[in-house]
Amino acid sequence: MTTEEIVKRLVALVSEGKNLQAEEELYAPDALSVEQNGYSVTGLEAVMGKTKGAMEGMEAVHGGGIDIAYVGADTFLLHYKMDVTPKAGERMTMEEYGFYKIRDGKIAEEYYFMQPLAL
Amino acid sequence: MTTEEIVKRLVALVSEGKNLQAEEELYAPDALSVEQNGYSVTGLEAVMGKTKGAMEGMEAVHGGGIDIAYVGADTFLLHYKMDVTPKAGERMTMEEYGFYKIRDGKIAEEYYFMQPLAL
Repeated sequence: MTTEEIVKRLVALVSEGKNLQAEEELYAPDALSVEQNGYSVTGLEAVMGKTKGAMEGMEAVHGGGIDIAYVGADTFLLHYKMDVTPKAGERMTMEEYGFYKIRDGKIAEEYYFMQPLAL
Repeated sequence: MTTEEIVKRLVALVSEGKNLQAEEELYAPDALSVEQNGYSVTGLEAVMGKTKGAMEGMEAVHGGGIDIAYVGADTFLLHYKMDVTPKAGERMTMEEYGFYKIRDGKIAEEYYFMQPLAL
């Protein structure tokens, strides 16, 4: 798959709430996932475990998904904007950027950013 | 310097049009710069040469700069929004994202994204 094909498949699966299927299909076995605070996990199973935890923390996902995507050569950048109600809070708009690196046709690294710096 | 200090210094210098000084001060000698189409250069001199070329391609920079910044542990993400007149065109708003990686207190990798995918 080309980078653009990977991005389109990822966007389509996430829009259906199939984030775990997306990871199973598109991620490398040794994928690295890094949160903004530096917390990271390595390996598809651990990455999927983290995603599962995040999804289980939601009372409901009302709508939204990936609304901006930039396709690089072997990188891409996504913006998520989702209307959610977390189990531990009020209904809110959740925004997040993800930068991704591809190796051998699979997503090998992801870096998430959720909390902007006040400029 | 911490990642946040690097980002704040970079934002300040870019807001004064001192992009080359920012690179000289904050980038690693072997820094890698990658454009969205995959074109890349390695080494501070080459990175600065590319920046110099981009700046010389502008008739005028009317305003703008870095308007969004996310600070990670040893990564950061910036959004540039600038009001420019290129030498080869009309006045326009130029938007760009940059993802950056830090090693040993210096910016070691940068990846730019300018052209969004239609979703």
